Amino acid sequence: MADYRPVTAEIVEALRGIAGERYVLYDDPERMAAYAHDEVAGEEYAHMPDVVVKPDSALEIADILRLANRERIPVTPRGAGSGLSGGAVPVYGGILLSLERMNRILEIDRENMVAVVEPGVITNEINEQVQQYGLFYAGYPMSVESCFVGGNVAENAGGGRAIKYGVTGRYVLGLEVVLPTGEIVQLGGKRVKDVTGYDLVRLMVGSEGTLGIFSQIILRLLPLPAARAVLLVPFADVPTAIAAVPEIMTLGHLLPASVEFMDRLSVATAYDFLGESPPHPDIGAMLLIEVDGYSQEQVEAEFGAVAELCLEAGALDVYVGNTADTERRMWRPRQNVAEAFKAISPVQSLEDVVVPLAQIPALVQELERISAQYGVLIPCYGHAGDGNLHATPVKRPEMSMEEWQATLPELLSELYSAVARLGGTISGEHGVGSKRAAYLPLVMDPVLISLQRRIKQAFDPLNILNPGKIFPG
Amino acid sequence: MADYRPVTAEIVEALRGIAGERYVLYDDPERMAAYAHDEVAGEEYAHMPDVVVKPDSALEIADILRLANRERIPVTPRGAGSGLSGGAVPVYGGILLSLERMNRILEIDRENMVAVVEPGVITNEINEQVQQYGLFYAGYPMSVESCFVGGNVAENAGGGRAIKYGVTGRYVLGLEVVLPTGEIVQLGGKRVKDVTGYDLVRLMVGSEGTLGIFSQIILRLLPLPAARAVLLVPFADVPTAIAAVPEIMTLGHLLPASVEFMDRLSVATAYDFLGESPPHPDIGAMLLIEVDGYSQEQVEAEFGAVAELCLEAGALDVYVGNTADTERRMWRPRQNVAEAFKAISPVQSLEDVVVPLAQIPALVQELERISAQYGVLIPCYGHAGDGNLHATPVKRPEMSMEEWQATLPELLSELYSAVARLGGTISGEHGVGSKRAAYLPLVMDPVLISLQRRIKQAFDPLNILNPGKIFPG
Repeated sequence: MADYRPVTAEIVEALRGIAGERYVLYDDPERMAAYAHDEVAGEEYAHMPDVVVKPDSALEIADILRLANRERIPVTPRGAGSGLSGGAVPVYGGILLSLERMNRILEIDRENMVAVVEPGVITNEINEQVQQYGLFYAGYPMSVESCFVGGNVAENAGGGRAIKYGVTGRYVLGLEVVLPTGEIVQLGGKRVKDVTGYDLVRLMVGSEGTLGIFSQIILRLLPLPAARAVLLVPFADVPTAIAAVPEIMTLGHLLPASVEFMDRLSVATAYDFLGESPPHPDIGAMLLIEVDGYSQEQVEAEFGAVAELCLEAGALDVYVGNTADTERRMWRPRQNVAEAFKAISPVQSLEDVVVPLAQIPALVQELERISAQYGVLIPCYGHAGDGNLHATPVKRPEMSMEEWQATLPELLSELYSAVARLGGTISGEHGVGSKRAAYLPLVMDPVLISLQRRIKQAFDPLNILNPGKIFPG
Repeated sequence: MADYRPVTAEIVEALRGIAGERYVLYDDPERMAAYAHDEVAGEEYAHMPDVVVKPDSALEIADILRLANRERIPVTPRGAGSGLSGGAVPVYGGILLSLERMNRILEIDRENMVAVVEPGVITNEINEQVQQYGLFYAGYPMSVESCFVGGNVAENAGGGRAIKYGVTGRYVLGLEVVLPTGEIVQLGGKRVKDVTGYDLVRLMVGSEGTLGIFSQIILRLLPLPAARAVLLVPFADVPTAIAAVPEIMTLGHLLPASVEFMDRLSVATAYDFLGESPPHPDIGAMLLIEVDGYSQEQVEAEFGAVAELCLEAGALDVYVGNTADTERRMWRPRQNVAEAFKAISPVQSLEDVVVPLAQIPALVQELERISAQYGVLIPCYGHAGDGNLHATPVKRPEMSMEEWQATLPELLSELYSAVARLGGTISGEHGVGSKRAAYLPLVMDPVLISLQRRIKQAFDPLNILNPGKIFPG
């Protein structure tokens, strides 16, 4: 890693020649600071780039990557910077390649039910554009209003509807990719099935910007569901809430769009932050369940069935929201819980662990143990239907920063090891990035780490593309 | 390739030591002949193995692969031999590794909604076992009653329900894999989401037995739909039939489980073979549409909507089957069409091309052109909802075998090039295998072929595992 070369004035000139003077930031710390971090809290995860370049085409990206190979300069691609693993942070400095100008929806192809987009499109815009055709893009994460679709693909973003609709990767039919060595290649296409050679589309999805830079993305669209409803379901405790989830799906013979979970602390903190009272005094855990479908009757039948099964499974009550207004109110605590904990303490580590569904109660027990052992709060909320929980160690106000910084690595090691013992892993949707790279050996066989390094090398022999991510240093 | 070593008596002894005397076939051409081919028609695609070995565990597979590396012997893994691309044919001889003994369903885990199976389980058995729990395995192909699930994963098998349920890969949550170099590794697990490192599970799926041998497969299960119905819909011509498909999905706001297609020749031949009359005298194309769902009411509403949309889109009529008996009768022509053409002429080349949905009419035109040019029949049927058509050049009885063998490669090149021009590729679900390896450059950028060879090398430096597949020689 140590043999990267510095970004010289000549290299900056070359970048200006490629992308245009206006689209290169250099020697301008004020404007460049925004490119030094993503949404991971903590200065220690930030790193200033030496130069920022904003190409506008695959050809420009290719020129930049060829230059970087020739001169041995690291290149870090960046979408909206809304990531949660440091994936877009230029940890070795060098060139920050921002895709913000490549923000066009190139085509909405109704007949084939696909959209062709550039990586810098804000994910939400896709649905705004396609719904007029009775279509929707189902692969969207929670941060849909700010994130770029390119980042979603790079991280294989999940979100609140994965239980029924899967994650981003399910909807990526094709990619135009600039390989680290500068070749522009087309992977997949407007075809739903393809088994011609290895599944390079799926290898690219979730590769965290280490195997190539996307210049176009072909997304599969689905028919837009005609109706939906949200159920807010309080339970007395976590095991009862979690045990209800497979019951709903198997006894109810149905697949909800969302099954979101919040523990006692998350419920209390989120409602407090919103200045509201929780809907029930004895909430030990809460599920938010969304059902959707292609007719109002179907959705009504489904939420009726879900409500009944929840009550049989021990729910304290069931509240149904089936107007836009009640739905929005029911989702608010879940949508604001991260903000609520930031208000208590901005010093925290938003985690993204995933375990088999049935192991959630065991995970929650481990979190309680670790919380007590290290003297930090660890609220827990997330995508229960997927076993993907955003357990978030939060510094108590009375803990010093030094103590927190000394504690966190040990706490995370303990957490990740516990997750591995439960058959889970350290990230369900945020990625390893730079934040979790050092911890990868806790959950992954060294044989697999070596194998993945060889795959990385097959794409990027000089390791110029997004170094310092995924793999321990 | 030329430097593989022969299978000596010592190697046979070593294999007997690993798997047991009974489970090694050597110098026994009669019993070994069954392992020389898969379901690809044509002697020229067959090749005898030098030895057949039937291991019973990952450890035995690992021992065999280490032996093969040490001695430089090619190893070809084999499931049920029901493949359609020569993927299980030992084209370089050597060791044929049959997974037929590893046929246990190891676990049905209701709480996590997963099944853990060995590769030699017949795919159909999984659904027979899990339906009692209100669950089903949605990733099954048409040959569900004979194929092994390991082969389905190796080929990323599709089938008739991919439009709604996706293909095999969507349901593979984890794999135990013996790498070509003999290490046993665990990929993924009983977790629905995982972005820890590259998606090696998905890289393995569809890798045609060239990157590793599966010893265990963790499959995601879904809630069993409670109801379904089949619609048989005749149209006057292909473009009208195909144009109806996106209309159904967008205007109907619904996603059928299946949208199968048969052209005029396929309809006529299949009904003739069954000794039945087609349901309508003027069938130029036919759709078979299946809808399913979690309630009878929903399914009735959906098939009503589909029927109406088909008639608006120009269908000649709509026949609804919603009893087990009528459903079975409606599916029979589609299920028997391959057999029907074999009865006309066993000499044929079952193809598996895939194009964007809206390009199916253009593909059918190309098929007519190629059919006229080369003087062969090319009936066409398949998965219209996916753009995946089994166009099948069939030798006319009056054509000589010499003429057929001289014609076929040229005809296939012409077909594959046409498919590529339409934005499609040469295989949607059967794989490249040995059958199509020479044609890969017609549809794939040489940069991507080299890249995939480097990936193969990262897994299998001595190229001992299933050589002669995917990549042109």
